[in-house]
This record gives sequence, C-alpha cells and structure tokens, in this order.
Amino acid sequence: MTKRICIIGAGPSGLAQLRAFQSAKAKGAEIPEIVCYEKQPDWGGLWRYTWRTGVDEHANPCHGSMYRYLWSNGPKEGLEFADYTFEEHFGKPIASYPPRAVLFDYIEGRVKKAGVRDWIKFNTIVRDVRKVDGGFEVTARDGETDSEETSVFNHVIVATGHFSFPNVPHYPGFEQFNGRILHAHDFRDAREFEGKDILILGTSYSAEDIGSQCWKYGARSITVAHRTAPMGYDWPDNWKEVPKLDRVEGKTAHFIDGTSKDVDAIILCTGYKHHFPFLPDSLRLKTANRLAADDLYKGVVFTGDTDMFYLGMQDQWYTFNMFDAQAWWVRDVIMGRIGLPDAAAMEADWKQRQADEDALEDDYACIAYQGAYTQELIDETDYPSFDVEAANQAFYEWKKHKKKGIMEFRNHGYTSPMTGTKAPPHHTPWKDALDDSLEDYLQV
Amino acid sequence: MTKRICIIGAGPSGLAQLRAFQSAKAKGAEIPEIVCYEKQPDWGGLWRYTWRTGVDEHANPCHGSMYRYLWSNGPKEGLEFADYTFEEHFGKPIASYPPRAVLFDYIEGRVKKAGVRDWIKFNTIVRDVRKVDGGFEVTARDGETDSEETSVFNHVIVATGHFSFPNVPHYPGFEQFNGRILHAHDFRDAREFEGKDILILGTSYSAEDIGSQCWKYGARSITVAHRTAPMGYDWPDNWKEVPKLDRVEGKTAHFIDGTSKDVDAIILCTGYKHHFPFLPDSLRLKTANRLAADDLYKGVVFTGDTDMFYLGMQDQWYTFNMFDAQAWWVRDVIMGRIGLPDAAAMEADWKQRQADEDALEDDYACIAYQGAYTQELIDETDYPSFDVEAANQAFYEWKKHKKKGIMEFRNHGYTSPMTGTKAPPHHTPWKDALDDSLEDYLQV
Repeated sequence: MTKRICIIGAGPSGLAQLRAFQSAKAKGAEIPEIVCYEKQPDWGGLWRYTWRTGVDEHANPCHGSMYRYLWSNGPKEGLEFADYTFEEHFGKPIASYPPRAVLFDYIEGRVKKAGVRDWIKFNTIVRDVRKVDGGFEVTARDGETDSEETSVFNHVIVATGHFSFPNVPHYPGFEQFNGRILHAHDFRDAREFEGKDILILGTSYSAEDIGSQCWKYGARSITVAHRTAPMGYDWPDNWKEVPKLDRVEGKTAHFIDGTSKDVDAIILCTGYKHHFPFLPDSLRLKTANRLAADDLYKGVVFTGDTDMFYLGMQDQWYTFNMFDAQAWWVRDVIMGRIGLPDAAAMEADWKQRQADEDALEDDYACIAYQGAYTQELIDETDYPSFDVEAANQAFYEWKKHKKKGIMEFRNHGYTSPMTGTKAPPHHTPWKDALDDSLEDYLQV
Repeated sequence: MTKRICIIGAGPSGLAQLRAFQSAKAKGAEIPEIVCYEKQPDWGGLWRYTWRTGVDEHANPCHGSMYRYLWSNGPKEGLEFADYTFEEHFGKPIASYPPRAVLFDYIEGRVKKAGVRDWIKFNTIVRDVRKVDGGFEVTARDGETDSEETSVFNHVIVATGHFSFPNVPHYPGFEQFNGRILHAHDFRDAREFEGKDILILGTSYSAEDIGSQCWKYGARSITVAHRTAPMGYDWPDNWKEVPKLDRVEGKTAHFIDGTSKDVDAIILCTGYKHHFPFLPDSLRLKTANRLAADDLYKGVVFTGDTDMFYLGMQDQWYTFNMFDAQAWWVRDVIMGRIGLPDAAAMEADWKQRQADEDALEDDYACIAYQGAYTQELIDETDYPSFDVEAANQAFYEWKKHKKKGIMEFRNHGYTSPMTGTKAPPHHTPWKDALDDSLEDYLQV
C-alpha cells in the first residue's frame, strides 16, 4: 500500500519537502501520497506578506511576521537553491539583498515549475495530530468551508516554522503606557512611525532591521534597550543604544542606568517561540532556538517518534538550501533509501551536535558549522551538491560589511556558490531605495 | 458515581456556572465534580484588562478585547446579579455606568464570596474536546508547566464568549496603507490616537464607543463609514458619518460616494465570530449573532449533543443576569432537576424562538424579548427572581438618553431592579472624567 505523508506548512521548508518528492518522481521513483496543509490562502510562509495582525481571516493566529519594505538581511548567495538558481529564475544576475517580493517570486518560481500546488490544501489549519494504529490521525479545518477532515498518515512532517508565535515579555508600566506596544510579529509599515520616537527592546535581527526600517522611513529617534550587551554597530545620530528597560510611566521609558526617554511606541523584538498548538506532548518538539536542536536526530528525525519529522527548527544562518538538504534527506528516510540507527545512536547524535555547537567560539565558526551540517545531509542524497565554502564566504563577508556600515552593507555583492557569478551592485543604495517592489528592484 | 463537569472559560458566563453549582452546594445539595479551564491567568473574561494584543503570554490567541478607559455602555441596572447586588458589594449606591475596574471588582466580589476559585485551572487552554465512551475527552494545555492533561467529563459547558475572535474584512489598498490598521479587538489606549485622524468602519457598539473614546482623549477627527445606515446620533463637530469605504490609497480613504479623507489609522469595528477552535464539527455551535441562536434548546442545550451546553452565545442586551439565569438552568438539567424533551421538541423550541425574534419590530421589543427569556429561565430554577420589567425600563431609558446626547448619556442614573434604589449621579460628567480608576469613580 502506498504510504501517506502529511506535511504541515507550505513555507520554504514545506515547499522544499514537496519539491524533494516531486524531484524523485520526475526521476521515475514511485513516491508516497502527499497532503500538505497550509493555513494561509497562499504559499510562501513568512515570505507571503499580509497586512493582517492578530488573527487571520479564519480567526486563527496570523502566521505572518513579514513587514513592508523588508529586504533580505543576509546575502542571497547564502540561501540560493542548488536545483534552481537566481540566474535561472530571473534570467540574469541580480543584486545580493533582494526585497521580499523578489525573494517570494524566486521561491514561487521553483515550485510553480515543479507543479506541486495541487498537493496543498490552502486555508486549512491542522487542529490536532495524534498517534493511532497505523500512524497519525490528523484533523484539519478548512476555513473556507468551515468544516473539518480527519485522515490517517504514516508520517507527519512539521514545517510550520518558528518565527510566528512571539515571545512577549512584560515590563512594569506596560498596562498604562499611553502609546502602542507591539511585538515585531505585528510590525507592518514603518511609515506608521514617521516622526515618532521609537523604543525597541532586543538586540537580534528584528531589532536591528526594524530599527533600520523605522530610521529609513523617517522615525524621529530610535532607542534600543539591551539586556546584556549593545549591538555595537555604527548607528546614525538619532539612534541610541541604552541599557535594559526598567519600567514605563506614562510615555516615559526608564532604563536601569537611571536615564529615561519619552517614546511614542515600544516595539518588542524579543524573539519567537517553538509553538505547536496542534500537537500533544508526546509528539511535540521542545527545544531552545539553537543550531543543534534537542531531540532531533540529524536535525530532523523526532526521537520521541521516528515516524515524525521536523524541518527548519534550528536557529539559522543557512535557510532555504539547508531546508532543501533536510527535505531531501527526510524524503529518503521515508522512501527507505536511508535507514535510521537505534534509539541510543540517535540520542547520541543530537547530543554530540550540541556539544560541538557549545564549543564554537564565534559567529564565523557557527556559520561554518551549519554549512558543514548542510553539506553532511546533501552528501547522503541526490540533492545537487554545491560549493558550501563559497556560501560560507558570502556570510563572512556579509558580517564584515555590516560591521563596516550597518546602513550600507546591502550595497555589496557576492559570488554565487551555484553559478560562480558575482552579483552586480544594486542600482540604488539601500537607504535611498524607498520602493521595495520587484519591478523597481529588477528595473523591469 | 459523581458526575464530572467541564466548564470552559471563567468569564461572566463561566463564573455564573460556578456560582450556580456552589449555590446548590451551599443549600445542601450534592453537586458534581467541577473543573473550569481558563486560558487567562485570572478570571473575569473580557472584563480582565490586558495590554497584550495578538497572542498572549502562552502564545495562544489573546482573549481580551477590553480597552483602557472603558465605562459600561449600558446601565448597570440592566446587568445586576439578583443574588449579589451592587449595593451589597460596594456598601452604598453607586452611579449607573461604572468603568471597567468597578465592574470587574463587582464580578469578582461575588465569586470571591462564593469561594470557587479553586475549581478553576488558570493559564490552561482547552485544545480539544471529543466524544468518547462515557462522555467527552477534554485535552487542555497548562501554559505555565507547558504540559497537557486529558480527562473525561460527563458534560461540557462552553462559556468562552463570542467577542474574542474578530471578524476582519479586507478592503482594496489595505496592503499598502501607510498607517495602522487594527480591529477593535486590538484597541487598547485611546491616547495612542491623540491628534490623529481616525477612520472607523462599522456602526455597532464598538464603533460608537471606540469612536467616543478617541474623541474624549483628543483624536483630531473621527470618520465613521457605514455599509447600510449611519448611527445617526448627534455627534460632536469633528465626527462625521460617511458611506461605505471603497478603497485606500496611501493614507487616503475613498468612500463610495466619491468623497475621501486622509487618515492616520483605520479601526475595524466589524464584529466578532463564534469561533471554537477546540471543538470538532459535531460538537461545534454554528450560529449568527442573534437573540435566538441556532441549535440551542432554551438558548443553552446543544441539540447536536444534549450533554453539551453553551452559555451566553446570544446577541446581548441582557448580560450578567441572563448568564446567571442560563447557568442556574443548566445546573438543574445536569443535576436532574429539569428534564429535556425529545429532539423534535427541542428543535421546535429554538425555531419558534427565532420566528418570534424575527417578528420583533424594534430595539425596545428586542429588549423585552430578552427580558422575557431571562424571566422564563429564572422561573424554572431557584435563582432569585427580580423585577425584569424594571431592568427593561433601565434599558429603555438608556436608549432614549443616548438619542438625546451620545456624549452625555452616561451622566444619567436608573433604578435598581434588585433593590429599588435610584442610582446617584456620578460626581463628574463622563466626557470630563479622564481617570477611569475604581478609586476615582467611588471616591475612596
């Protein structure tokens, strides 16, 4: 009997999984029956922009954390698909930090070409997964018809991402703050904050990039409070890094060093949770956001139930092509091409990966570590091999360029690990490019 | 064996149910085992204020639609508990339109006195309910311990409300609006909109009251777009009612009559959904928001499975004391004091109620209709009877006072249907009372 596979989510990870199976089929293999549930009305995951915040059109939690005017904050050379290059998609070399619409177009191009859209049930949220005789019983609700279906699968692949459910800390006085308090998850249009004094909590990518957006689109001032250490970039004059927030009174934010600042809005760039409201405890991944997650053999097989897989649950330098490497590898386990060792060996695997991660000394080592992990998976499947060292190199240069000029790093270009082509410079410096459309970026 | 009862939600309806059982126990009856799951960290349902929007501290959809500075938009004489009067709680007569903190204190006072807090599991969201041999299997996740429990109950009482999951329509241009778009559910502090031009979509209570809040706390202008008819109150000079929104371009809202208005924020006062993400199709109420809901015998017994009950799922003039009437009645069904007729009679019941509702000619008739429904339930239990006609009267006067002066109606006082006392006038007209604290309201 044909196996039945349930993929949850049609973002970059879920789409990679669909493409992995389709690619095997195209080469003549018999593949399992695939059903992919996607709660949004379209594919692309976080790369699909929506103006909605809070709950979506079907009253389910909004998946989207995407905001307008976002340009990739890392070089596209680090995330290029090995089986579908930027040059193939756009028909010419393009610059290294594309805005959202361009990346969405690229992601979509591959799966359109693969013809996998019919495998996806859109507007359909998975409400429950439970172990039953013969596999997993999955209950999904179609928001359009407002009705459920329950179906049994041999394998479940969780590809729902981990940047959708915000971690939202409380600080004294938030109850009475006289402005807007929002998490990065709900940030949509920087122009809302034009002329405003903004307080950002956090020091990771969201803080850096949302602050930069607000600056670019005319916020009056940006104040970033850190808990441990400042980001330390060479910020513009109206950007200040301050110590941890202590409390808010009225519109005044007080910091632990005794200084204060009146602000109009507080944006919590305080990270996300690995949250799976559709899973019982026994099937649910619990892990910190780290390069080697807990309980995942080879970073993908859930050791609590090895018929279950998780894609992309790591903290990420590598993204799209790492998801590909994982998806091809998971496909081959499901199709019997790769065997799993015993439970003890699987546990030893992720513990060793964590020990190796803990020994890494800096970000450069982390990049190399995740590149090597990606390479390791690729070597065991037929995913097209590529020059991982060149991808590492793009990341290294990116980090140096950020250090050199946080508002200028996106003006640089890097060499594709797939085609060897050096990206051309973009026609307009990032800080002056206010139009984030595909048409403007590609000058079409 | 003792029956096991699951109550979902510890807001006004769920608390009414707890109080109903506790009251029977206090009179010497043997009552079932009660477990109440509440996803928030405290009781009070919508009357608990939180600054959070989107998802809550446990990454579940925020229950709260409450905003700062809210005063009751109907007279407290219409919602008074028959078994616990305002005068008993506050020790003196108080004015008729208390702010949130005062109402919360009142709701809490009764259940504190009843001593039912231990029956509630806070921070615990119900994730799934399904029919099994012997009753209902309920799976609930405790957000504090991040773990689940599954337990079987003879009856499930759904008291989760229907003002928590927003209905959010899309209009052309929302994707590119350069300001904030929010649903009333996410409105928190009117001062955020001080000096701003606000567009409100909708003509029901949220539109009326959130608009009034924004006006009171200094919005520059309020524009309210209606789909069918304007609210037609005598609005202040900077408040305008306009026809339906057609589209948004940049910050400009265009209406179907060809007029337009530049606005800073769009607040969607477009209602809520009856949404029960924890229920399978077979147990899930599907109804419009109306006085006589679909599929509920006597407004509370789910005809699809009569071991299941829904509280407060009606559109509401009456609230707290109607929930009480329902809770006492449901208690008596569960305790075998009231019997249920056959399926045909139950179906005939809600259909007749809907036919009666459809024949009502105006709001006054609707008020009387819901008063009579409340009376009907009360007459069949030991809930203290009260002067429903006096409560109707308070509602009638309220409507007239609103018509006379939409920014002044809260300065009036009405006669308690429980004590016969006429409410004293408040010490400050509503429009000048910027402090919404209990201390200020009660002058303690």
